[in-house]
Amino acid sequence: MKGKATSFDIAHLTGVSQSTVSRALRDSPLVSEETRRRIREAAEQLNYKVDKNASNLRSQHSGTLALLLFEDPTADDSHINPFFLSMLGSITRACALRGYDLLISFQQLSYDWHADYADTKKADGIILLGYGDYLAYLDKLQKLVAQGTRSIRWGAVLPDQPDVSIGCDNYQGGQAIATHLLEQGCRRIAFLGDASSHYPEFFERYRGYAATLQQAGITMDPALQVDAAESTEQAGYNALETLLERAEPFDAVFAASDLIAIGAMRALADHNIKVPEQVAVAGFDDIPMARFLNPPLTTVLQDTKLAGETLVDNLLCLIRNEPVETHLLPVKLVVRRSSQFSQPADHV
Amino acid sequence: MKGKATSFDIAHLTGVSQSTVSRALRDSPLVSEETRRRIREAAEQLNYKVDKNASNLRSQHSGTLALLLFEDPTADDSHINPFFLSMLGSITRACALRGYDLLISFQQLSYDWHADYADTKKADGIILLGYGDYLAYLDKLQKLVAQGTRSIRWGAVLPDQPDVSIGCDNYQGGQAIATHLLEQGCRRIAFLGDASSHYPEFFERYRGYAATLQQAGITMDPALQVDAAESTEQAGYNALETLLERAEPFDAVFAASDLIAIGAMRALADHNIKVPEQVAVAGFDDIPMARFLNPPLTTVLQDTKLAGETLVDNLLCLIRNEPVETHLLPVKLVVRRSSQFSQPADHV
Repeated sequence: MKGKATSFDIAHLTGVSQSTVSRALRDSPLVSEETRRRIREAAEQLNYKVDKNASNLRSQHSGTLALLLFEDPTADDSHINPFFLSMLGSITRACALRGYDLLISFQQLSYDWHADYADTKKADGIILLGYGDYLAYLDKLQKLVAQGTRSIRWGAVLPDQPDVSIGCDNYQGGQAIATHLLEQGCRRIAFLGDASSHYPEFFERYRGYAATLQQAGITMDPALQVDAAESTEQAGYNALETLLERAEPFDAVFAASDLIAIGAMRALADHNIKVPEQVAVAGFDDIPMARFLNPPLTTVLQDTKLAGETLVDNLLCLIRNEPVETHLLPVKLVVRRSSQFSQPADHV
Repeated sequence: MKGKATSFDIAHLTGVSQSTVSRALRDSPLVSEETRRRIREAAEQLNYKVDKNASNLRSQHSGTLALLLFEDPTADDSHINPFFLSMLGSITRACALRGYDLLISFQQLSYDWHADYADTKKADGIILLGYGDYLAYLDKLQKLVAQGTRSIRWGAVLPDQPDVSIGCDNYQGGQAIATHLLEQGCRRIAFLGDASSHYPEFFERYRGYAATLQQAGITMDPALQVDAAESTEQAGYNALETLLERAEPFDAVFAASDLIAIGAMRALADHNIKVPEQVAVAGFDDIPMARFLNPPLTTVLQDTKLAGETLVDNLLCLIRNEPVETHLLPVKLVVRRSSQFSQPADHV
C-alpha cells in the first residue's frame, strides 16, 4: 500500500462503511463491540494513526449534502422533469463516490426553507436545483448566504447574484441551435419558451438565439415567440397551438426544452405538419428519450454527469473553505433528423 | 376553518415550513426571534393548542426517511437505471407531500450498511431498493430487522423473508406477456434475463412466462433462455447475440426489462431482423422511453407513482407501530407495435 493508511483502507479491509470506521475509532456505542474490535485490529495491522484534528473536524460533520429541489410537489403531473431526474441521479452518484449521503428536500418557493438549514447540522452544505421564478426566491437566497450556509446553485450566472452558481452555457446553446437552423436554410424560426428575467436559463437560450438571427440580418418578429413557462409536453403543445393561431408563417421551431419540443411535435403531427420536411424542430437538454423520438430530436446536450460532479466537488470546496468561482459548463449541439430538412427524407 | 388548527395551518399562515413551526413552538434558538414571534401570534390567532405528547414524540423524530439504493456507484455506465430513477422521483415526491425529507444513500451490497442506521436517528425508517443478488445481502437484512430498524423493501415476496416487502406482481406480468405473445401466434418465445433465485424479480417474470407456455402445451427449450444479469442495453445486446449464435429458431423475445429489450432490438436491427414482422419483442417496466421507440415497445407497466406512495405510506405505518403486510401491486400489460406481427405492417 502506498502512503499513509486512511479510514477508507480500514473500511475496505473490514467490509464496513467509512462512517462506521470513524465511529468505531471514536468508541461510539452505536457500533457493536465485536465490530469495534475488528476495526481496531485492522487499524493496528495497517499502522493507522488517528489524526485528532481531522477526527474532531469530521465528527462535527454530517457526512451529508442536501439537495433542495424547487418544484411544486403537488403538481398534477406526477413525474419529475426528466432533466432534473437525470441531475438527481448524477448528484446522488457523485455524492456516493465521495462518501456522502444526499438529503433531498422538495421545497415550495414561497416557504421559508432557508431557515431549515441554519445551524441544524442536517447537512454540511446545500445544492439548489429547480425551475421556478428566480426573482421570487432571490431574497431567501440572500438570507441563506448571509447566515453562512454553504450553498451552490445550478443555474444561470446573473448580475449581482448573492451566491456561487454553476450552470451550462445556455447562451452558447441558443447560438448553436440558431446557427444550425440557419445553415439548414430556415429563416422564420419560432421560439417556444418564456423569455424574461424570471426564468434566466430560458432567457439565456432566447438571447443566444436572438443575437445569432440578428447577426444574420434577420429582423426579429415578436409573433414568433410564445411563452411556455412550464417545461412540460402540455405547455409545448399549447404553445404550438398558439403559434398556429397567430397565422404567421414559420419554418422552424426552437423549443426551450426537449419536453416543450415533444409537445410541439405532437401538435404539429395533429395538424399534419411534417417534421422535418415542413418544419424543422430543435429542443434543449438531450433527455434520454430525445434520441428515440420519431424523428429523433436535434437538441443541445447538457452533460448531467459532469454537472452533478462539478456541483458536488465545488460544494465540498466551499465546505473546506477553499475558493470557488461561479462558472458555466460548455454545451454540445446534437444534430438529429428533426432539423435536417435539406436532407432527403427516409421514405423518398 | 374546520376542526382543530394544526402546525401545518400555522405554517401555511406564516409562510414557513412545518418543521420551523415545531421548532419555534419549542422555543428553539435555531429560529430567529422575529420568526418565533410571528409564529406565536399565528398560533394564538388560530387558537392552536400544543399537544405536549405529540410534540415530545415529534421532537424525537428526524422528519426524514432514508432510501438505500443497492447499485454499484462505480459502474462505468454513469446513468442510473431509468426504472430506479423513476422510483427515486416518485419516492421523493411522496415524501415531500407527507412532510418528510429523503436521505439517499448508495450502498455496496458487500458493505456493513445496516450498522449505519442502528440508533443513529439519521432517519425514522428505511426503504431498500435495488437490483443485485438478494442472497448476497439477506444476512444483513436479517440484522437490520433484528436491531429494530423500521424498514420496507421493494421487491419480490420470498419464502421466510425477514422483512416487510412491497413489489409488483412480476409473476402476473410474465403471464400477461406470454399470453399476449401466444395470442399473436408466437410459439418459440425466448427469454432474455437471469432466471435464478439470486434475482427474484426476474425469476418471477420467468416463472409466470414458463407456466403460461407449459399450460399452452409448449415444451420449454433451455436454448431459448439467455442470462442477462444486468439490466442494461449492452446486456440485452449481448444476450440477443448469444441467442443468435445458438442457431435455434425463435419468433419472439421476452426481455426481463425494457433496457434489455432496447439492446435486443438494436442487435436484431444490426442483423436485419425486422421487429415485429420477423420477431415480436416485449419488455418489462414501461420506462418513459418505451413508447417512443421505433417500433414502440410492448411491455408491462409498473406504476412507479403508486409504488413510491405505497412504500412511503407503509413505512410511515411501521414507524407509528401500525400493522403492515407484505403485498404485491398489480401490473398492467401495455401492448404496442413491437409485438403485433399479426397486424399489417405500416409500410405495406
